[in-house]
Amino acid sequence: MTEANENNDQENSPTPLEQATYLLQKYKLVAGLVHLQGISDESLVESTVQKQNLSELQDFLDQLHPADIAHILEALPLDDRLLIWSMVKAEYDGEVLLETSDAVRATLITDMGSKELVAATEYLNTDEIADLAPDLPQEVMDDVFRSLPIAEREQLREAMSYPEDSVGALMDFNVITIREDVRLEVVLRYLRRLEEMPDHTDQLFVVDRNEHLKGVLLINRLLVSDPDTLVAEVMSKEMIKLHPNDVAQQAANAFERYDLVSASVVDDTDKLLGRVTVDTIIDFIRDKAKSEALNLAGLSEDEDLFAPVLKSVKNRWVWLAINLVTAFIASRVIGMFEDSIEKLVALAALMPIIAGIGGNSGNQTITMIVRALALDQINNRSTWKLIFKEIGVSAVNGLIWGTIIGLLTFAIYQNPQLGLVMGIAMILNLLLAALLGVLIPLTLRKFGHDPALGSSVMITAVTDSGGFFIFLGLATVFLL
Amino acid sequence: MTEANENNDQENSPTPLEQATYLLQKYKLVAGLVHLQGISDESLVESTVQKQNLSELQDFLDQLHPADIAHILEALPLDDRLLIWSMVKAEYDGEVLLETSDAVRATLITDMGSKELVAATEYLNTDEIADLAPDLPQEVMDDVFRSLPIAEREQLREAMSYPEDSVGALMDFNVITIREDVRLEVVLRYLRRLEEMPDHTDQLFVVDRNEHLKGVLLINRLLVSDPDTLVAEVMSKEMIKLHPNDVAQQAANAFERYDLVSASVVDDTDKLLGRVTVDTIIDFIRDKAKSEALNLAGLSEDEDLFAPVLKSVKNRWVWLAINLVTAFIASRVIGMFEDSIEKLVALAALMPIIAGIGGNSGNQTITMIVRALALDQINNRSTWKLIFKEIGVSAVNGLIWGTIIGLLTFAIYQNPQLGLVMGIAMILNLLLAALLGVLIPLTLRKFGHDPALGSSVMITAVTDSGGFFIFLGLATVFLL
Repeated sequence: MTEANENNDQENSPTPLEQATYLLQKYKLVAGLVHLQGISDESLVESTVQKQNLSELQDFLDQLHPADIAHILEALPLDDRLLIWSMVKAEYDGEVLLETSDAVRATLITDMGSKELVAATEYLNTDEIADLAPDLPQEVMDDVFRSLPIAEREQLREAMSYPEDSVGALMDFNVITIREDVRLEVVLRYLRRLEEMPDHTDQLFVVDRNEHLKGVLLINRLLVSDPDTLVAEVMSKEMIKLHPNDVAQQAANAFERYDLVSASVVDDTDKLLGRVTVDTIIDFIRDKAKSEALNLAGLSEDEDLFAPVLKSVKNRWVWLAINLVTAFIASRVIGMFEDSIEKLVALAALMPIIAGIGGNSGNQTITMIVRALALDQINNRSTWKLIFKEIGVSAVNGLIWGTIIGLLTFAIYQNPQLGLVMGIAMILNLLLAALLGVLIPLTLRKFGHDPALGSSVMITAVTDSGGFFIFLGLATVFLL
Repeated sequence: MTEANENNDQENSPTPLEQATYLLQKYKLVAGLVHLQGISDESLVESTVQKQNLSELQDFLDQLHPADIAHILEALPLDDRLLIWSMVKAEYDGEVLLETSDAVRATLITDMGSKELVAATEYLNTDEIADLAPDLPQEVMDDVFRSLPIAEREQLREAMSYPEDSVGALMDFNVITIREDVRLEVVLRYLRRLEEMPDHTDQLFVVDRNEHLKGVLLINRLLVSDPDTLVAEVMSKEMIKLHPNDVAQQAANAFERYDLVSASVVDDTDKLLGRVTVDTIIDFIRDKAKSEALNLAGLSEDEDLFAPVLKSVKNRWVWLAINLVTAFIASRVIGMFEDSIEKLVALAALMPIIAGIGGNSGNQTITMIVRALALDQINNRSTWKLIFKEIGVSAVNGLIWGTIIGLLTFAIYQNPQLGLVMGIAMILNLLLAALLGVLIPLTLRKFGHDPALGSSVMITAVTDSGGFFIFLGLATVFLL
């Protein structure tokens, strides 16, 4: 962690990524020059300079934290990435793989042999291996299983059995357990015999002989209490107990609300299975926020920044296809009114305004509702209040913007009726946006879908087609 | 924390929010009945039943964690919210205010008298008071300052001096410091004299007599080491040092990468100022994700779910106004081609398809780039690679979707030239979207702006106006 320290120390010192890029360039530049000039008898110079450059790069990488290496790999184009990857210490391989995003991890794993992959898992805990498992080839996982002691084999099987996004998938097995009938003195001596304690150990778990959780002894309590005290006297019986099949979001909410560092995971009989720690929760929160942003923009999954073009196309086509369908429907709605547009061509120029602002307003409503649903703030009682509120907001906005746009239209086209139709269409489309902005996410949720996924596309489809229909329909009836 | 525990224990037990809503309804129902029937001599019954209901609600609230109370307040309409708020224990007031969102906090503070507010701060640390300070009336802050001992007054002044989103704003002062020349035995005895240790104390800070940071003693090391060892022998000299004027995001990245529970904050001379803890970081990450989602949707700031209509209108008008301007520009672009549309009205129906898919594709690119910028993965060298990649993706997508939409157009309008123009316009608009999808966030960043803010609006404006111009322009040149 020296690097991180040094970097935080001086604000203008280069980041690990900048340093790595610089050293990499230096190495590649010489390689390029030699190659360019076809100088063969300079192979001596080449090898000396190059060896030096390479070892400089190697030294730099060796002192980096695995998380920093992962960050550098993410930011490099594929060829540079694989060059750096080949230079990472074998004992860091596993940790670096854990820290990279799914897309980049895949490029690294493809570059490794089976043996290398098995070796990489040797430095990992079973719960960490389980995190990598979905990305590893079957034969590698078979070898990994064979290489583990029986107890850990069982743990790995257990860790792999939990569905993604469950508490079980976030759980690790690094718990220290103690009994309630011993004195703190004994606990302290027991701890002193350990070589080190697992990271994020802020509490010891008090269990009976059947491993049922009785309470927790906070390390902070342990340190300030008289060593003669019994564990039972200072342990806390009020604690967060998670279950492996709970959804992970629930655990994240608990950590956020109660400011936890670790929390126990128990089965239905209160038997201690493991724990969840705050570092895992932070990763979960970050990944969740990332995938939400990706989904909103119509990217199916995480994408390597330097993914080959065809891979990116594959990642993005679904939403483009959906968008094509909704755009096509909107186009057909306009097609219905081609006669009207032929008679009054101004309609063609004005209609995107109605559709666009409706879409923007609808997305504002959707965002409010999706957020409130995620935070569990909406129940049946409040639904009506929300619909009324959003309709109220839209009515006011409609009056304001409808008036402005109506006057603008009148100013440009000198046609008061056209201005009036424009203003009324604006109000109606904003009301439509408000109503469906509340109903779409609530309905998705009711049927068990993620209320965020696709909401934005749907509301835009509605406000586009709906906006065109309202505006052109009104124009056809009242103007022509 | 009993409640939280019970709730996690049985999956189907009601959440605190559900329970609160139920008890509140029971209370309000009776009140409503009595009011409705105008029964005055039943005041005895009323008061007995009501007193019972009220005390049931009170008992329930009294056992809740402040974070749970905050959650309930967020989810309730204003009148119910204020009723519950009036029943919260005075010593929880401060913590509940800290846990609520800015918008809801404002509604609660408006409901409190100056004395109540000053009293609420009495249970808070100085760094927590500083968090509330921007929302408190000046005379309350004056009283708070007067009520504090001099040392804390200085701390509060310091905490309030750091800009929002700086490390200083996340910092607290709850550090335990020790000297390097003492034995662990002494440290343990020192700790035992404390009544309790600050939350999230996973390390003690080793300082010299001028409070310059020499190293950290991890609690986990302290526990497993021989008590006869000197602090200097087991302390770690490699550690994360944050500076109060660093941007907060930098601290969040460090916590995420190095799995920290706490980190020191020092000034330029390495003097220890305070620390940042992981619970603050989680709140920061969550707030950041929230405000990004809000900004993307065109909401200026956090909005109370049950805000009055006019307040919501105010929160949303800026982006609607910006959207109106961009939509108006797009409309004027179409207006330039009114003659062409009059001659070939199919153009009006087809043009939104070009604009829509361009917008979608551009937003995909923007999201990728903004995310990579946030993770610090883009440097000057990779910019060109990214532009080429995105243009490649758009070229492939353009060929695919351009062909499909061209054939569809031909099928509907039986006009091969129109189909060809449609296909070419699609390709060109997707290329435009790719180029600007990379350039817009990079340019915003270059000039020191948040690359996320407004990117989406800008790319949509470009792909709308640009799409209309490309399509209608091509049609005018080649078809008419």
